[in-house]
Formats: sequence, C-alpha cells, structure tokens
Amino acid sequence: MLKNQKNPLITPEMIIPSGSGLVVKGALNPGAVEFGDEILLLLRIAEGCRKTEGKVSVPVYRFKNGVAELEILHFTRDDPEVTLKDTRAVVYKGNEYVSTLSHLRLARSKDGVNFEVDEKPFLTPQNESEEFGIEDARMVKIGAYYYINYTAVSKDSYGTSLIRTRDFVDTEYLGMIFCVPNKDVCIFPEKINGSYYALHRPHNLSFGKSSIWIAQSPDLVHWGHHRCLIRPANNEWESDKIGGGAPPIKTDKGWLEIYHGKTLRNGKDFYSLMVLLLDLEDPTKVIFRGDQPVIMPEEAYETEGFVPNVVFTNGMVMKNNEDLLLYYSACDETTCLAECKLSDLVP
Amino acid sequence: MLKNQKNPLITPEMIIPSGSGLVVKGALNPGAVEFGDEILLLLRIAEGCRKTEGKVSVPVYRFKNGVAELEILHFTRDDPEVTLKDTRAVVYKGNEYVSTLSHLRLARSKDGVNFEVDEKPFLTPQNESEEFGIEDARMVKIGAYYYINYTAVSKDSYGTSLIRTRDFVDTEYLGMIFCVPNKDVCIFPEKINGSYYALHRPHNLSFGKSSIWIAQSPDLVHWGHHRCLIRPANNEWESDKIGGGAPPIKTDKGWLEIYHGKTLRNGKDFYSLMVLLLDLEDPTKVIFRGDQPVIMPEEAYETEGFVPNVVFTNGMVMKNNEDLLLYYSACDETTCLAECKLSDLVP
Repeated sequence: MLKNQKNPLITPEMIIPSGSGLVVKGALNPGAVEFGDEILLLLRIAEGCRKTEGKVSVPVYRFKNGVAELEILHFTRDDPEVTLKDTRAVVYKGNEYVSTLSHLRLARSKDGVNFEVDEKPFLTPQNESEEFGIEDARMVKIGAYYYINYTAVSKDSYGTSLIRTRDFVDTEYLGMIFCVPNKDVCIFPEKINGSYYALHRPHNLSFGKSSIWIAQSPDLVHWGHHRCLIRPANNEWESDKIGGGAPPIKTDKGWLEIYHGKTLRNGKDFYSLMVLLLDLEDPTKVIFRGDQPVIMPEEAYETEGFVPNVVFTNGMVMKNNEDLLLYYSACDETTCLAECKLSDLVP
Repeated sequence: MLKNQKNPLITPEMIIPSGSGLVVKGALNPGAVEFGDEILLLLRIAEGCRKTEGKVSVPVYRFKNGVAELEILHFTRDDPEVTLKDTRAVVYKGNEYVSTLSHLRLARSKDGVNFEVDEKPFLTPQNESEEFGIEDARMVKIGAYYYINYTAVSKDSYGTSLIRTRDFVDTEYLGMIFCVPNKDVCIFPEKINGSYYALHRPHNLSFGKSSIWIAQSPDLVHWGHHRCLIRPANNEWESDKIGGGAPPIKTDKGWLEIYHGKTLRNGKDFYSLMVLLLDLEDPTKVIFRGDQPVIMPEEAYETEGFVPNVVFTNGMVMKNNEDLLLYYSACDETTCLAECKLSDLVP
C-alpha cells in the first residue's frame, strides 16, 4: 500500500482538549465511513493529566445518579503500592488504571486527506462500564443507521459496546455486546444467510494466544455461536497475538479484512497489518490469509512516538469499487492514510 | 443448611471410566432438575490418565472430519519445558493443558439421596472448542425443553456452550453462548419483561477481580446487554473472586441465587457458598446479599481431597415450594447434598 506523503494526517497537537487539566496524548484508531459527500473519521482522543512533580495522575469518570463527572486520581510516585506498567497503565494496590482516558471525536474531510477535527467530543463515557474511557470506534452502515462499536474500559476490564446513529448528531445506546475481556470487534455490513456476523477478540489468557473469533447475531445487539476463526501464525509478524482491524468490506472474491498482528522484537511490541479473505456465503471459512504485512512500521512517524512500532487500523473506505483508503494509526498517537487498488490486495 | 449424613453421596469410586487407560478423579459439580418422578443430576466426570513412571500424561480430544478421538499426550516430567501448576493443570512450552478431561454423565434418584449413576456418558466433547473436555453443567427447564449449559474447554481457553433436550436422550447443540474466558453461567428459568436473563462470570484479568455479570437474550442462544452485577466483597469469604452457582429459583421475595465465593487462607483457595436475592421484575437489582456462607468447608470430606476446602454448587431443586435440596461438590471430587427450608435462606 502507498502511504500518504502528508502522514501523519492528524496529530494530538491539532486537538482541543475536552477539559481543563487535560493534555491530548493521542488522536488515533479512527473508524471510517462515507457520509454524504464527506469521509468521516471517528477518532479516539486520548487525554492524560498535566504532570505534577512526584505524582502519578490518572483521569477517571465517576457516575453519580447517571451523571458523569471527570475525576483525577493522584498517586505518590514512590509509593511502593504504585507500579508503572508501561506508558499506558498504572497499577495501584493491585488495581489497574489507564494513564490516559479516551473519548470519541469526529473529523471530517471532502478529499479523504485534509481533515477538520470537531472542537467537542462526539461521545463521552456514559455509564460505569466506561469509567476509564471509550476507545477504538469501528463504524459500519446497515440500512438507515451507522452502527458504531467501541471499547468500553472500566475497573472491570474492557468490553465492546454499541451505539447507532442516523445523522451523527443523535445516538442510541444498545448496550455492551461483547463482555469483558473483549475488543477489536468488526461487524460485517450486511446479513449473510439470515444472520449478522462479527469478528471479535477475547483475551484468552494463558490458554492459547489472543486470537480472532467470529460470532453471529439476529439483531446486532445479542451475539452467540462463538467460534475461534484464526490464531496467531508462527511467523515474524503475528506470532504473539492478532485482532480484527477494519470492518470487513465485500469484494467479488470474498470478505476483505485487514487485521493487526503483534510480535515481539528485542522484547518490544511490533505491530503490522495483515490481509484475510473470508468466504462470502460462510465467513467462518478462510479463503486466503497473507503471510506478509500490507503495512508495517517503517517511517519515523511509525517507529518513534507514544508507543513505538505500532500500526493499527479500525476503518477503511472503498471508492469506485476499487480504490481502498485505509486509515491507520502510528505509535498509538497519530492518524495516517495508506491507499491501494483492491486488486493489489486480493489475489 | 443441613448437610446430609450420607455425604458424600457420589464418589469417583462409584463411576465406571469412559475408556481404557483412564482413571476417574472426580464425580462433581452436577446440574440438578426434577424429571418425571426422579431427580436427575448431570455430573461432571473428570478422568485422568494412569500414571507412567517419569511422565506427565494428559488426555486430549482430537477432531478429524468431525469425529472425536481421545488422545493421551505424554510429557517427560523433568523436561524444563514442563511446569506443573497445581493438581489441575500442566504447562508445556507455554501452552496450558488440563490434567483431567471431563464429560457429562447422568445420575438418577427417586429420593434425592440415593443415586444410580449411568454406565455411559450422556455428553462427550463434540467439537474443537471442547477438546480439553466439557465441565460443570447447569440445567433449567423452559417450556418443553431442558436447557443445559456447560463449560467448553480447549487450547483457546474456556467458554460456555448450550444444548437442549426434551427427554435426556436426544440433544441439540446451540453453540457457544458466552465466549472465552467465561464460565459459571446460570440461566433464569423464564422470561422477565420479555427477555431471558443469565448470570455469567468473565475472567477480567488484572482489571478488577472476577465478578458476577448479567446478560439478556431474546432466544437463549444470542446474548447482549452485559453488565457487572456484583463484585467480590471485602470479607473473609469472597474477597478473591465470585461466580454463579445454581440457576436462580423464583421465590415470593425475589430470584434466589446461591453463588460461590473464593478467598485465600494461608495462601490456599477456600470456597464457600453465599446467598443472593435479585428483584423479580428487574434481576439487575440486588435485593439482598448475605454476609455469611450457607455452606463452607468443615467436614473431613470437604477439607481433604483432590482440591481441599472447596464447596461448589451448580444446581438446586425446590420441592413443595419450600424444601430446598442443594447439590454441591466437595474438594472438586465428590457430590454432596444440603437441605433447608426456603424461609431459612430468604430473610
């Protein structure tokens, strides 16, 4: 795929923080759809706290009588009960907190390259299951609605919740659809033989490695028939774990999925994006699985940043039935674009 | 509750192994229902391998063209790649195997105390998601069917799958209803305000402690609206983790649930059974939660065995609308009975 020369298209510096005391650390992992004559990205805006000498501060939402209130917790840095796991998490007295708290915000573009980011959030945490933030939206149009699933993070771990909207103004909450610990949910854009399908990624602990699963639903809200679809391959790109990327796109050859694979290089995470093709009539059947990445961390903006050597996608748009625009994030920090012809990916 | 004087009612010695080379290690964690004039228990029969000097042997099912075949893997005990976690699991080259493999078998009784155990399994692993066995059945009658959920164990971790039967002869597989890692699923026996409900227990990792969740379904097969219901209480019975026990029973005061709580005593697991009462009209609302166990390990058969100090329930039967028969397991090994009046439990 050809990486855009203007990459990164969206950076944290372009984002107005959602509250005082907050610093934008990331504008990342957007879902992507066409809406009218625009391409809409729904960004995850990750915000941390302004630094205080000798303290570790984490933002948390509290819910009192259904009303959300942002609270900042301060831990003393040299408290033996405080453990800094990496840049993303803090453990205090055995409980895990995230160092940044995310909301979802829209960015709009006519040409798919130059984006205007909204000044205000599109969606903020709305209940206790989202007290540590909402992350990594994926969008798919089904009928008159855009269905948007996202990761809901709380002290009870991370699950995947669903909203829908017709107009990107009013939203309807449809509940947590994949319970903790589960993320990287990619909903197929239409029913297949009478059933909706989604890819999902449960955290299966020491029993195996984190793999891509598939499930079925009559209504997008209730899910069953869970099956493991593909496991990490024993190669240099995805030996550690894998997870769904962009919601699948229908092609003549099958359902096209771009997923992420993680491996460890010198003890550090290294993420690439891989190709998967699933049977049009039965998406539990794998037709093709690439053994080389379509995108891997190479450019400076992909190898140096908040979390180095991460490329990650949550959305792609197909134009004219052949031009693929893949929006992806670099270093868990910025939003980038890569393009190619469909025929370049599908063998 | 009053523990039966004949406890344990069912022991591994009473069970005919399902295959040569296998030794019955446990007859435990039964679901319980009334069927005709009998009480049926659906036992988990845990079988290990005969010991071979210097080897660690684990049983695994392999599936070739949909046909199940039992295979026994042998690891050399002093292989540095072999780690014995406890009596229940072996890790080889980073992969976890269970030391026993379970199937489900029926036991029948006219008086609820003296049981005849079938000579053959009722249900054995039937697909790859069950290659390490099927465990911990829970049964509930809805309409003309008995719905039976159980834990499906594989190299991809443990999830909860569902079958149904009218006659305890023919069964129909309805798929995995709660994906990995999830167990302790208790289905409510009727729709409540138009929706089925179930308790479930995802493993939420270091994000919080394993808690009891609740979900909704239109059809018992597809589940959504996942919410955390109760978390471990900071007391001497359930500070470490909790999980659903018997499927809830409807009472005048609310839905009666007996769940299990685990705590650590001198670094060792200690399981007790606790009482929970949920609102009849909205089971996401807790009416009452006991702070003392109704059963805890006290008798020798509860404190000495395969896994000491474990009491665990998967099923109870209510007779004459007031007599509760709670079937529970001791030490992950045997099946026991405790009885009381409903009014003794519900305040």
